[in-house]
Amino acid sequence: MQVYDTTLRDGAQREGLTYSVADKLAVAKLLDEFGVGFIEGGWPGAMPKDVEFFRRAREELEFQHAILVAFGMTRKAGVHVEDDALIKGLIDAQTPAVALVAKSDLRHVLRALRTTPEENLAMVADSVAYFVANGRRVFLDCEHFFDGFRYDPDYTTSVVKAGLDAGAEIAVMCDTNGGMLPSQVTKAVAEVCARLGVSPDRLGIHTQNDTSCAVANTVAAVEAGVRHFQGTANGYGERPGNADLFACVANLQLKLGLPVLPDGCLEQMVRVSHAIAEIANIAPDTHQAYTGSAAFAHKAGLHASAIKHDPALYNHIDPAVVGNDMKILVTEMAGRASIELKSKELGLDLAGRPDVATKVTEEVKQREAAGWSYEAADASFELLVRDALGGGPAPFTLESYRVIVEHREDGAVVSEATVKVRVKGERVIATAEGNGPVNALDEALRQALTRHYASLATLELADYKVRILEGSHGTGAITRVLVETVDSRGGDWTTVGVHENVVEASWRALVDALTFGLVRVPA
Amino acid sequence: MQVYDTTLRDGAQREGLTYSVADKLAVAKLLDEFGVGFIEGGWPGAMPKDVEFFRRAREELEFQHAILVAFGMTRKAGVHVEDDALIKGLIDAQTPAVALVAKSDLRHVLRALRTTPEENLAMVADSVAYFVANGRRVFLDCEHFFDGFRYDPDYTTSVVKAGLDAGAEIAVMCDTNGGMLPSQVTKAVAEVCARLGVSPDRLGIHTQNDTSCAVANTVAAVEAGVRHFQGTANGYGERPGNADLFACVANLQLKLGLPVLPDGCLEQMVRVSHAIAEIANIAPDTHQAYTGSAAFAHKAGLHASAIKHDPALYNHIDPAVVGNDMKILVTEMAGRASIELKSKELGLDLAGRPDVATKVTEEVKQREAAGWSYEAADASFELLVRDALGGGPAPFTLESYRVIVEHREDGAVVSEATVKVRVKGERVIATAEGNGPVNALDEALRQALTRHYASLATLELADYKVRILEGSHGTGAITRVLVETVDSRGGDWTTVGVHENVVEASWRALVDALTFGLVRVPA
Repeated sequence: MQVYDTTLRDGAQREGLTYSVADKLAVAKLLDEFGVGFIEGGWPGAMPKDVEFFRRAREELEFQHAILVAFGMTRKAGVHVEDDALIKGLIDAQTPAVALVAKSDLRHVLRALRTTPEENLAMVADSVAYFVANGRRVFLDCEHFFDGFRYDPDYTTSVVKAGLDAGAEIAVMCDTNGGMLPSQVTKAVAEVCARLGVSPDRLGIHTQNDTSCAVANTVAAVEAGVRHFQGTANGYGERPGNADLFACVANLQLKLGLPVLPDGCLEQMVRVSHAIAEIANIAPDTHQAYTGSAAFAHKAGLHASAIKHDPALYNHIDPAVVGNDMKILVTEMAGRASIELKSKELGLDLAGRPDVATKVTEEVKQREAAGWSYEAADASFELLVRDALGGGPAPFTLESYRVIVEHREDGAVVSEATVKVRVKGERVIATAEGNGPVNALDEALRQALTRHYASLATLELADYKVRILEGSHGTGAITRVLVETVDSRGGDWTTVGVHENVVEASWRALVDALTFGLVRVPA
Repeated sequence: MQVYDTTLRDGAQREGLTYSVADKLAVAKLLDEFGVGFIEGGWPGAMPKDVEFFRRAREELEFQHAILVAFGMTRKAGVHVEDDALIKGLIDAQTPAVALVAKSDLRHVLRALRTTPEENLAMVADSVAYFVANGRRVFLDCEHFFDGFRYDPDYTTSVVKAGLDAGAEIAVMCDTNGGMLPSQVTKAVAEVCARLGVSPDRLGIHTQNDTSCAVANTVAAVEAGVRHFQGTANGYGERPGNADLFACVANLQLKLGLPVLPDGCLEQMVRVSHAIAEIANIAPDTHQAYTGSAAFAHKAGLHASAIKHDPALYNHIDPAVVGNDMKILVTEMAGRASIELKSKELGLDLAGRPDVATKVTEEVKQREAAGWSYEAADASFELLVRDALGGGPAPFTLESYRVIVEHREDGAVVSEATVKVRVKGERVIATAEGNGPVNALDEALRQALTRHYASLATLELADYKVRILEGSHGTGAITRVLVETVDSRGGDWTTVGVHENVVEASWRALVDALTFGLVRVPA
């Protein structure tokens, strides 16, 4: 089974989503940890950022399971394949495999490409053969496959044949517009195979979720004999998104008993799903199948004790198999073993300090129940552990702050902050303005501290994310703030703050951000 | 085809969701407008709120298409059906139809009900017969049907038979744990029908989304001959949720060409979907199939002009058919016709004032592009229209405000606001404290105004919702605040404010809230 991930290419089409190169490298690493076989990294040649991604991936990534795939189009009409700039960009990416998208709906050939049916077939054959001759494995993405097959099955089939004959490993049936239902996919796979006289294991499946059936369509294709499926982490993608890779994998492996992932990978699902959501700055969908924090949540009620005694009767799978948990707390990592593991990862060994491990576990549990989240805030977590280990004195302590937001007579809205802190025995007061209350606080705090800690001048607030968490009934909303900080040497870290008051929540994240900068780079 | 909605019963199991009785009435009205045949309103007897709902529904709701269904359990083991309090509650709801849930997995009969297989069958038969004798249509929800059928097909089939023999109109196969795939549903329907010698149109289907296949499983059952399906608006429900009613309806009607909804209903889909989301206080899922604001969004790019010329080649359906739009602006209602319609609804006729309609349409378009949303903020919309119509002078004008948030030396975080306003020619200054900056502003503004407008004392801020909207690249997040206000006479209205600064956004919503209170109840 070929598990083919396109989170970083097709998934990045999702409205409002942008990855930096560093983000893409981090996502690729996570996908490899999840055990996918192929990671489509982007479209070099078309996207400068993707050229950079493939260059850095060659130097920085060492995959355990995956191979990298670069995506591109078949050559342009009327151009020699060697002379096509995008084809060259694809070669330059130096990946062991490429995915080439081809028009396979005659109407798109005529109206969008504005070329002849024959030239399109030549474009497919030439391009596939060229990459094969250059030692690449080739996957042919047949765009608008199902709509094309319904409109003119002969032509669509001829595109598949041109690709396979030229040496493509797999011809991928793409439901580009996303309008298919499972029974229709089943039927189409059988018909294409009959027409071409090929086994379904030469075909792949790529679905979109416009009928809310992307996962089911993928499963249907695999049940029909297809052995290559494409999906994206959490189903991110254009319009309603792509097939969710996680649900596809879990369904195929757990429901149909097919060998999909290497051993030890399936249980990484929840961790990888949530970590990618954080990188994408999309709130993890608490109701997502398999990976959502509520995916195995049960309301206490009539059956509470029955559920407790007989969990297997109330869960469609054992949640632990995918790294999830039936009894859902807010926490993702409040288990003591995870705390020890995580600390070790950060270079803080708690093995000989059971008291500290217990203390940190309790603290994390309490804080996560109150809305804190350490999953994406390693720096705040590390400060918590250092504190429990009895680290040195804090580099500064707050006496007080004051933020003023004024809507003035002329309509201007201005923000000003004053902080009073103690630094190395001295009391420092600083005042600054900002675009908003938080920006003003950040400016004032830095002003107060840089007199004593020159290294803070090299830090920069790179990203600021605010999430309003649902309050309990009758209580107000709780605000969670994540702050990402970078230093001039390329380091970056994320901190978290939570409070009912957005200003105080932001303050807490800021304090951790600068403290961590000082712990890490002692002045 | 029986379109059976359970948004208000099973859908209300969604984590964190609570409806008031007024909410439930509003949701039921919307579902009827969407043309569903059956609305399962709740569980009278078990839930006091649901008793009240059915009472008020009898008096206040007049359905065009739907009939109300009350939900309950079969009688308790060892109890006469007439003596069962919950059965009595169900009768008292006075609905034309009831849904009875029965255990159909032998393990649940033995371990959760702790009764005998025979008594469970008697419970089913007695309960169904009792409601039939009382003139009710009966739907039998066979809980854990598929798991039970896999474990002990004889017993599960016998439960279905007991229900149908006793007069149940439909026996509903419930995938309670949500673990099914479409091919498995197809197979199960055929097997059950063969065992019982009944037509599949005596069966119903109820699915949960734990494999991300709830919609596909529903479609598969209907393709297998089932003619009764259950879903919830937007797929709300326990764990990953129920089958999304909207996607099920659209797939069956548009993809399979089945008669599902009455004429004129399908195009209500987006409006009804979003309105129910607002009532549930769940952000509408922008990526939801068919109804999401991004469901037909295309990234401008290589194909932009092709999409423009040939939209049918790039959309799986014409978005207008479900009330959606290909070119997605932020707006839901910026069309001029909708603006006129909405104004009329509010008692402001713009028919003879094309200049005003144009002005309001432009204003709404601009504001919604900047993140405002009038869909749930009728009062702010009405103020906008009144303003464009040249309504009277504002009851007060702001000179300035100042909010101070202090983190004091003792760790307390306090908020204080001062507002300076002009009211009836007088300049008024007022200062108040609050739990947070917004609460303090609200208190200060009321203090300033109640001297001149005594009626403001009867207003109360009933709800406050904050949503952080994704910013564009590089810009900060935009905050949207919704404020719900109630008066002592039972009136309530919602206003909206948007700004990058949460304090200013809240201020704008507050000003509209009090202004509307004064426009509505002149002092």
